[in-house]
Amino acid sequence: MNPELIQVPTLLLDPQRCRQNIYTMAEKARSQNVLLRPHFKTHQSHHIGRWFRDEGINRITVSSVGMARYFADDGWDDITIAFPVNVREINEIKTLAAKVRLSLLVVDAPAIEELGRRLTEDIQIWIKVDVGTHRTGLNPDHTDQLDVILERLQHYPQLHFAGFLAHAGHTYQSRTVQDVQDIYNQSLKELIKLKQKYQPEFPGIQISLGDTPGASMADQYGEVDELRPGNFVFYDLMQEQIGACDADAIAVAMACPVVAIHPERWQWVIYGGAVHFSKDAIVLADGQKCYGRMVTWQEQSWHTGLGNAAPFLISLSQEHGIVQCTSETFSLHQPGDLSYWLPVHSCLTADAMGAYHSLDGPHPDHYRRHALNQVVNV
Amino acid sequence: MNPELIQVPTLLLDPQRCRQNIYTMAEKARSQNVLLRPHFKTHQSHHIGRWFRDEGINRITVSSVGMARYFADDGWDDITIAFPVNVREINEIKTLAAKVRLSLLVVDAPAIEELGRRLTEDIQIWIKVDVGTHRTGLNPDHTDQLDVILERLQHYPQLHFAGFLAHAGHTYQSRTVQDVQDIYNQSLKELIKLKQKYQPEFPGIQISLGDTPGASMADQYGEVDELRPGNFVFYDLMQEQIGACDADAIAVAMACPVVAIHPERWQWVIYGGAVHFSKDAIVLADGQKCYGRMVTWQEQSWHTGLGNAAPFLISLSQEHGIVQCTSETFSLHQPGDLSYWLPVHSCLTADAMGAYHSLDGPHPDHYRRHALNQVVNV
Repeated sequence: MNPELIQVPTLLLDPQRCRQNIYTMAEKARSQNVLLRPHFKTHQSHHIGRWFRDEGINRITVSSVGMARYFADDGWDDITIAFPVNVREINEIKTLAAKVRLSLLVVDAPAIEELGRRLTEDIQIWIKVDVGTHRTGLNPDHTDQLDVILERLQHYPQLHFAGFLAHAGHTYQSRTVQDVQDIYNQSLKELIKLKQKYQPEFPGIQISLGDTPGASMADQYGEVDELRPGNFVFYDLMQEQIGACDADAIAVAMACPVVAIHPERWQWVIYGGAVHFSKDAIVLADGQKCYGRMVTWQEQSWHTGLGNAAPFLISLSQEHGIVQCTSETFSLHQPGDLSYWLPVHSCLTADAMGAYHSLDGPHPDHYRRHALNQVVNV
Repeated sequence: MNPELIQVPTLLLDPQRCRQNIYTMAEKARSQNVLLRPHFKTHQSHHIGRWFRDEGINRITVSSVGMARYFADDGWDDITIAFPVNVREINEIKTLAAKVRLSLLVVDAPAIEELGRRLTEDIQIWIKVDVGTHRTGLNPDHTDQLDVILERLQHYPQLHFAGFLAHAGHTYQSRTVQDVQDIYNQSLKELIKLKQKYQPEFPGIQISLGDTPGASMADQYGEVDELRPGNFVFYDLMQEQIGACDADAIAVAMACPVVAIHPERWQWVIYGGAVHFSKDAIVLADGQKCYGRMVTWQEQSWHTGLGNAAPFLISLSQEHGIVQCTSETFSLHQPGDLSYWLPVHSCLTADAMGAYHSLDGPHPDHYRRHALNQVVNV
């Protein structure tokens, strides 16, 4: 790929870093006899999905019915939709369930009723448990509520109780290996307790846990049956801050033209804003918000040598990114240059951009955002 | 449109509210003899653009070369790209300039050199001035810097000096009509001073100002030549908080399925997250962040009757939205219901969604996000 040809904000993918991340996680799971069911919401790409297949992965996680359909179209046939089932999509779910081994998440009994009455296909049912993130899921101590769901489940033989699933998203607040391992262990303990309680009645049930900090930083996976991390395929500055990766493992970077410089405040303006990066930030040690950190281009890829001394994005509007430099770094770029940025949250950046340019590619074939907004049905 | 048929997060467009917003702004500009050159980055839609044409608008503003190309394709032939010129797109700029009356922004002399040497087509050149937002633009007091740009400009007869352009984005920090009017007046004063200084040498130069709070709230536009507001076409909760609109003027709303409820904390989970709303928030009076506020559906459109007592989105992850209710509002929805949400920043929500469903439409023809992420060039 020749960066000289890049004209507009472009999301670059380093296949080497990406495949290394996939290999490392797959190998860690294999060595601990844990099933890796990676979450594909981060990359949302057939092409990258196939790199997982090369590592022997054959079961995946997604976050929407549309994403399940997209990956089913590429031959994936064992898919968990790790999102409380949206019964408004029951017809799409029915179509999918006829095609793949489909696992769904439920958090209440009415969802079981709806699935049971409307579907004839076999479905695996996971009960979503809240291990402390408090986003969604049932309190694992309220087994009376679990019992209500399981009682309803018995009425529908096509619905198979798969087990208990949790997302320990509160690891994102952690900053040390010990904190993450503690959350991982505590989450697992909750799930194991449930498994032990319900296994006599439901032999074969499993427990599933998933988040990138936990899967990356926990030394021992323990008695978990499956893990569902997703972000590790790319990693990002948020994961670096938590301690789940080094900056060098981050497998995507934005390439953005510099369009203005402001020596009086050591700032640059880049073409690259909220519609490209999305708008998650990390808070730096000095309290400043950071929406991206600069890396430099050398030969065939980007390099992280500037470390934390690198210019960083202090704000994003729709198309503008404002970059804070120091007196030392200010002279690194002039308007017209291409600059390179590690994203704060690669899942959202990848979704906003909708396309990757691989460093392996022969030429950049300029990135075009999806067709501009359309009015439907008027 | 029948909301019963909506299955997934969908951006609804109320044509009546939208056309009223367009009419009101066009009428206000007409009555004060100011040229309205609306910014089309908010809606990014051919269809909505035509509603402006119905109001006699024939000049527009956009924020990228790609957006200029998109609207040129629909017959717009007088377009300002209100973003510091990205010289890496010089070939696309050349093609556009051969087709439409193109206006570009410059903030430094090297950009003039690049345009002058590479383009043979006539181009209108605006100098971007910083009237206090400190995003980009030249300090209007540093006329020595302006002089350097204007000196270079003289060497290229195809480059025509159009005047001085500013974006008073610091109105977004205001909360009263007086504050906004003050910023508007102060910004205008800076531009008038420049116009008066340079008019003898460059007769016919104009001054252009543009931001939705200013254009909506300033009672008198004064001696400005053109205004470039954009967001007013939809408005949003951020504009309501500033005081630029009533909630009832907001012309887009997200329709999102409710997928889980949590009585112990009076919260719901909706299918609708950062990839749908994008991730701008306003801070409420009590310090809580708000990513969207609920409205109710009645007959043919949404209604804002719940006001500030409405449930609101307190956090967004990739696909999940977490809704905070009170004991009174918690019972308004059950899983499986469709809920409706005014966005915090309609520009970013519209961009993230990429499609509108008009309330006038005969059926919702389910929204599909743009094709999932593709790897290019591998």
